[in-house]
Amino acid sequence: MERDNQVGIGKFALRLVLDFSDETDAAKTKHSTTDYHFCIGKTGAMDLKKVVSAIETASKRNQLIEEDLYRETHALYHAILEAIQGVTRGQSQLGEIMRTVGLRFAVVRGKPYKNKAEGEWLAVALYGTIGAPIKGLEHETVGLGINHI
Amino acid sequence: MERDNQVGIGKFALRLVLDFSDETDAAKTKHSTTDYHFCIGKTGAMDLKKVVSAIETASKRNQLIEEDLYRETHALYHAILEAIQGVTRGQSQLGEIMRTVGLRFAVVRGKPYKNKAEGEWLAVALYGTIGAPIKGLEHETVGLGINHI
Amino acid sequence: MERDNQVGIGKFALRLVLDFSDETDAAKTKHSTTDYHFCIGKTGAMDLKKVVSAIETASKRNQLIEEDLYRETHALYHAILEAIQGVTRGQSQLGEIMRTVGLRFAVVRGKPYKNKAEGEWLAVALYGTIGAPIKGLEHETVGLGINHI
Amino acid sequence: MERDNQVGIGKFALRLVLDFSDETDAAKTKHSTTDYHFCIGKTGAMDLKKVVSAIETASKRNQLIEEDLYRETHALYHAILEAIQGVTRGQSQLGEIMRTVGLRFAVVRGKPYKNKAEGEWLAVALYGTIGAPIKGLEHETVGLGINHI
Amino acid sequence: MERDNQVGIGKFALRLVLDFSDETDAAKTKHSTTDYHFCIGKTGAMDLKKVVSAIETASKRNQLIEEDLYRETHALYHAILEAIQGVTRGQSQLGEIMRTVGLRFAVVRGKPYKNKAEGEWLAVALYGTIGAPIKGLEHETVGLGINHI
Amino acid sequence: MERDNQVGIGKFALRLVLDFSDETDAAKTKHSTTDYHFCIGKTGAMDLKKVVSAIETASKRNQLIEEDLYRETHALYHAILEAIQGVTRGQSQLGEIMRTVGLRFAVVRGKPYKNKAEGEWLAVALYGTIGAPIKGLEHETVGLGINHI
Ligand SMILES: [Mg+2]
Ligand SMILES: [Mg+2]
Ligand SMILES: [Mg+2]
Ligand SMILES: [Mg+2]
Ligand SMILES: [Mg+2]
Ligand SMILES: [Mg+2]
Repeated sequence: MERDNQVGIGKFALRLVLDFSDETDAAKTKHSTTDYHFCIGKTGAMDLKKVVSAIETASKRNQLIEEDLYRETHALYHAILEAIQGVTRGQSQLGEIMRTVGLRFAVVRGKPYKNKAEGEWLAVALYGTIGAPIKGLEHETVGLGINHI
Repeated sequence: MERDNQVGIGKFALRLVLDFSDETDAAKTKHSTTDYHFCIGKTGAMDLKKVVSAIETASKRNQLIEEDLYRETHALYHAILEAIQGVTRGQSQLGEIMRTVGLRFAVVRGKPYKNKAEGEWLAVALYGTIGAPIKGLEHETVGLGINHI
Repeated sequence: MERDNQVGIGKFALRLVLDFSDETDAAKTKHSTTDYHFCIGKTGAMDLKKVVSAIETASKRNQLIEEDLYRETHALYHAILEAIQGVTRGQSQLGEIMRTVGLRFAVVRGKPYKNKAEGEWLAVALYGTIGAPIKGLEHETVGLGINHI
Repeated sequence: MERDNQVGIGKFALRLVLDFSDETDAAKTKHSTTDYHFCIGKTGAMDLKKVVSAIETASKRNQLIEEDLYRETHALYHAILEAIQGVTRGQSQLGEIMRTVGLRFAVVRGKPYKNKAEGEWLAVALYGTIGAPIKGLEHETVGLGINHI
Repeated sequence: MERDNQVGIGKFALRLVLDFSDETDAAKTKHSTTDYHFCIGKTGAMDLKKVVSAIETASKRNQLIEEDLYRETHALYHAILEAIQGVTRGQSQLGEIMRTVGLRFAVVRGKPYKNKAEGEWLAVALYGTIGAPIKGLEHETVGLGINHI
Repeated sequence: MERDNQVGIGKFALRLVLDFSDETDAAKTKHSTTDYHFCIGKTGAMDLKKVVSAIETASKRNQLIEEDLYRETHALYHAILEAIQGVTRGQSQLGEIMRTVGLRFAVVRGKPYKNKAEGEWLAVALYGTIGAPIKGLEHETVGLGINHI
C-alpha cells in the first residue's frame, strides 16, 4: 500500500461515488483538477444488464473509452463485472433472486502508477443500496473493478 | 438511496478505510463523535484465513462483538465473507491462485436505520491492494459486508 | 455435533420437508408441540424468484417474520439464498440453464442453543426435485440455510 | 415430486444422516431391508480433501463403488462435490476461510426409478455442523449430491 | 497424459469444433471412420437456455442419447454445464450481464478408455466467440465437458 | 464467428496444446511462420499456484510479457485465471478437493483483429487431464483465457 499518500485511481473512483450524493455538478467541478478523466452517474435496476449498459453508455458518451475499439470496451466490461461482484457478493444476479439495486457509479481513466510505462488504467466504482424490491428493505453495497486499458 | 444525506454505516466504514492511511490515531479521534462503534486495523496475507482472523481478533479485542455469543460471531463472519468477495471478485482465494493482499479494515457496529426497531447492524469494510506476491505488481481493491447483529 | 441427541433447528426443518409428503395438515398437527414456530409449503418453478417469493410470502403470512422489519426480512433472505445453494449446487439458476424445481419448503424460527442469550435463529429447508422441464427427468435435491434473527 | 409416496434414494440417504446420531449399528440394522446399498460414517475436518477422502474410502471399503473403475469413482466424486456445495453454500472451502465441519455422511447406491432401464444411481448425503474452529460456534448444515453410475 | 498418442474423446470433440468452420458435411465425412459417434452444430444466443436446448435437441435427433432415459439426459446435461463454464468463465450467464455467444458445438459419445469396462463417455465441446451484443466486439472462447454415460 | 476462415489467436493457442503431444520442437518449428509469438510447456500439480507460476515463468522467460511491467503481468494473470476456470469448471481448486491436473499450456501474443488499432492480445490455452491423484482416474479438460495487453 505504498500509494497510500497519493490518491490511487480506485480510491479516487470510490470517493466520487461516496462523497457527493445529490451534487453531481459539484463533483465534476471539484475533482476536475486531477489528471484522471472520469464520469459519474446513477442507475437503479432489478436487471444487471441495465447496470452494465448504463455504465457503458455513460463511459462512451463521456469519451472515457473509444466506442469503436473492442480493446477498450473489453477493458471496461471486465472492470464493470469485477465491480458488480463486490455489489452482489457471490451471485451476479439481481431480479432473478428477488433483489434490486440503486447505485451511483464512477468510471475513472488515467495513469495511476509512477512508472508511466504502466500506461492507462480504468477504475469502475459502484456504491448504493441492494435489497428487496420494497423501499427501505435494503442495505449499502460497494464494488470496485480495476483494469489496464 | 434515501439515506444519501446521512452517513450510512457502510459509507462510514468505507471512509475509515479510505481516509487515513498512516494516521490510525487521527482516525480514531476524528470519528469518535459518531454513534457508531468501530475498530480499524491492517492485515497483509497470502492466506485468507489470516485476513478473517485479523478482523475477528480486532473486533473481539475492541468489544465490537461479544466473543462468547455465537450469534455475534456468526453475524461478523458472514459480513467478513461478503467483504472478501468484493476484494477477491469471483474466487475467495489468495495464495492458492498466486496473489496476495495488503488491506486496511474497519468494523463498525451501530443503528443505521431511522426506525430503531431495526436494531444494530455490522459493517466490515476492506480497502487496499491485491496482486502478485511481488511489490508493485498490484492494484487497489475494496469490499463491504453488512449484516444485522 | 453435541446437539445430536436433541433436535436442532435445521434437523427439525429438514424433517418437516422430508416426512410428510401429501399430509401438510398432519405435519402441522404432529409437530406443533415443539417450541419452534414454523410454516411449510410447496413451490414449483423455473424461476428462482418465484421460489424466494413463495417462501417469503408464506413466512410473513404465518408471522414467522415481522414484515415491516428489514432486519427480519434480511435474515430470512440470506437463509433462503443459502438453502437455494444446496438445491442448485453451483449456479443459483433454474430456467436460465433449462431446469426446473418442485420443492417443499419449511421455515422454522426458534431458540436452538442451550444458552438462551443466543436468541432466535431461522432455518429454511428445501427438499424436492430438480431437472429438465419434462416430467420424470429429474432427481432429488435438498438445501438448508440457517441464520440468526 | 411424484415419488413422494415412495422413498427416493436422496430422501433415504438424508434419513440415514439425520435419524441415528450415535447408533450407527442400529442404522445399519434397521435400514438393511431396503434394496439400496449404503454406508454411513463420520468425518470432521478443516480440510475439504479429508471429507472427500473419508467418503471415498468408506465407499470403496464397503464395495459401494468398484475401486478400479474410473467411471464409478467419477460418479461418486461429482456426487460428493455436489453435496459439499450444500454444506459450504457458495465457497467449497473450510479452513481457507476459517471454518470447520463435523459431518455424518451416507452413500447410497441403487435403482430409484420405476423404469429399471434407468439403472443405478448414487446419493451422497451430508449432515452436521459448520462454523468457527471453536466448539459451539457452529450451526447445522446439509448437502445432497445425486448422480447416475 | 498417457493418452497423448491416441485421440481422447475430448480432443476429438475439440477438433470437431476447431477444424471445420463452414464445412459441416466435410467434418461428418472425414471423421466418420472413428469409433466415436458424434454430432456437430451451431448456436448463437444471449440466452444460455437456447444453447443448452440446441445441444440437447441435436443430441437427441442424432441418437447420441436415448431421449426417454433420464440417465442419459442427466449425463449430457452435466457435460453441457461443464462446457458452459469454460465458455463463460465464472458466471454461467449471457444476456443477464450483456453478452452474447456464437458457438459451434460437438457432442461425442464412445469408449475412450483402453479398459472397456469403463464403458461409454460423453464429451461436449464448444468453441466460438463471446462478447458484447455488437458485431466484432467479441473474442474467442472454448469449453469442454466430459461425463460417463 | 466471421474470423472462422482465418486462425484466431485462441484457436491458434488451442491447436498448440492439442496438436503435438511429445513434439515440442516440432511445434515450435511448424508454427513459427505465424505473426503470433508463443511459448508452450507442461505442468502437473495438485496446487493451482504451481500451474499459475509455471505459465507466468515460461511467459517471462520467453519474453512473451515484459516482466517489469505490471500491466503485462496483470493481462497475463487474468487470462490464466480464465483458462483455469475452463479446466476446473466451477471451483478453481485442485488438491483442496482431492484432484490433480496434468496440463500442456500455450501462451500466444499477437494482433488477432483486422483493425490494427485493436493492438495486441494474449491467449492462454490449457489442455490435459484432471482427476483423482491416482494414475488413470482422470479425464480430459480444456481452458482458454483471452485478454487485451
Ligand atoms: Mg486484476
Ligand atoms: Mg445482505
Ligand atoms: Mg452461517
Ligand atoms: Mg444432476
Ligand atoms: Mg468430471
Ligand atoms: Mg473477456
